[in-house]
Amino acid sequence: MQSFKTLYRVSWVDTDAAQIVHFSNFFRFFERAEEEFYEHMGLTDWLGVKDVILPRVEAFCQYRKPARFNDLLEIELTVEELKEKSVRYGFKIYNKKTAELLANGYVVAVAVDRHTLKAVPIPQEIVEKLKTYCPLDKTK
Amino acid sequence: MQSFKTLYRVSWVDTDAAQIVHFSNFFRFFERAEEEFYEHMGLTDWLGVKDVILPRVEAFCQYRKPARFNDLLEIELTVEELKEKSVRYGFKIYNKKTAELLANGYVVAVAVDRHTLKAVPIPQEIVEKLKTYCPLDKTK
Amino acid sequence: MQSFKTLYRVSWVDTDAAQIVHFSNFFRFFERAEEEFYEHMGLTDWLGVKDVILPRVEAFCQYRKPARFNDLLEIELTVEELKEKSVRYGFKIYNKKTAELLANGYVVAVAVDRHTLKAVPIPQEIVEKLKTYCPLDKTK
Amino acid sequence: MQSFKTLYRVSWVDTDAAQIVHFSNFFRFFERAEEEFYEHMGLTDWLGVKDVILPRVEAFCQYRKPARFNDLLEIELTVEELKEKSVRYGFKIYNKKTAELLANGYVVAVAVDRHTLKAVPIPQEIVEKLKTYCPLDKTK
Repeated sequence: MQSFKTLYRVSWVDTDAAQIVHFSNFFRFFERAEEEFYEHMGLTDWLGVKDVILPRVEAFCQYRKPARFNDLLEIELTVEELKEKSVRYGFKIYNKKTAELLANGYVVAVAVDRHTLKAVPIPQEIVEKLKTYCPLDKTK
Repeated sequence: MQSFKTLYRVSWVDTDAAQIVHFSNFFRFFERAEEEFYEHMGLTDWLGVKDVILPRVEAFCQYRKPARFNDLLEIELTVEELKEKSVRYGFKIYNKKTAELLANGYVVAVAVDRHTLKAVPIPQEIVEKLKTYCPLDKTK
Repeated sequence: MQSFKTLYRVSWVDTDAAQIVHFSNFFRFFERAEEEFYEHMGLTDWLGVKDVILPRVEAFCQYRKPARFNDLLEIELTVEELKEKSVRYGFKIYNKKTAELLANGYVVAVAVDRHTLKAVPIPQEIVEKLKTYCPLDKTK
Repeated sequence: MQSFKTLYRVSWVDTDAAQIVHFSNFFRFFERAEEEFYEHMGLTDWLGVKDVILPRVEAFCQYRKPARFNDLLEIELTVEELKEKSVRYGFKIYNKKTAELLANGYVVAVAVDRHTLKAVPIPQEIVEKLKTYCPLDKTK
């Protein structure tokens, strides 16, 4: 299975008074990886500019080890499931230096019309690209 | 089952360019409700000051309808499961005005020693209070 | 001079690894006070919904003492200067319990057309309300 | 005058319902540039780990043009003033593609003992590095 990997260095503002990354920020790291994945696929416009947007309907994260200020994180994204109107991304976050798995999770996004907020099919241009990353193609 | 409810008004900074609340912020709203729950139980010190801290090991949210700037949210917290070393909070977020359910989810927190980050029993003072809110008491 | 005051309790996510509130969050507290000020004046619609928006053109904060998790903050807003197309809010943040001044600053907002982003006069409905708070009325 | 430059791509979460970057986030971009500056100088440990920390005492930003989702920003940091116990960084944020200046500002940080929060001299190891970037050396 093909995956997409990117790096992110933990910023001071990502931490909290427990001196570790705040749990909510892992979801922001997931999203950053998704943004870079779209950039990598040449699909950046779809993340905000066009009439179809992909809001999240589910998000999950399991926290295994803390991330700390200045840690270099490797974020791995896989397309776990691709349906006609939704896509499920899987994420794993590693400490790049120690190779430890810090967190894993997933996000389900549904394609919706920006104006009506009704679900619509994922645009074909995106489907074509995501397919090359997805082991479970259920779009047909 | 007893639950704890609090209110939160969506701030401008909580929104994103889709003009709805960013999905990661629902987890912050969950935590704010938890903080006010501890405040309500007279347990605020446990959320940061003492030697036992309660980091999250799992977080999940299902998004049903968007929340928008200035929406008044009602956040309902229940103690879904109480174990010796962990607690699972359930959350429901409603639009106070329309009574619509916008999101639901849960967070599992584990008691750990602040210095060693090893799991330890949830302090008895907390257990006693949480019990009164929990339908599934597995602490014994 | 009339001022507007509101309360805000510091959330865990507001803190950073120095175990104090991250400096950028004071600007968010300023904005929250402004939102509640508009709410108080019955002008909430102007903060996002209408065709005129009020983006910031300047922001300044001086940090005097740290704020910590769960501190109850009192945020005081004054309308320091009101011009045809801009308004300058002054802010003071106090620790409610100790009455210490933690931070002070200001924000200048300019009225712009949402679509063209060109400066326009502050809508009369807002001017009328702000005037009652402002010692330096330069709108005429 | 020598400056330090770094790049940052605007993430979805950085934006707000005006579909531009929230004003508070420019301060986070300033700080990210500072972190990478310290990394570049081999001084990362000083940003969090050691007994001397450098909290902010002043922060200012002037907003000239909006930044939007996925814009690639170039952040330029200069050491505007170096004193015995404080340093003032200047920042300019450009749109990398259009070369437009979007925002400029500064942050003053004071060296303090982590435990007492009293001001102390900036550690010599940092002073030596900052000097090479600073036109106004007032440390002597």
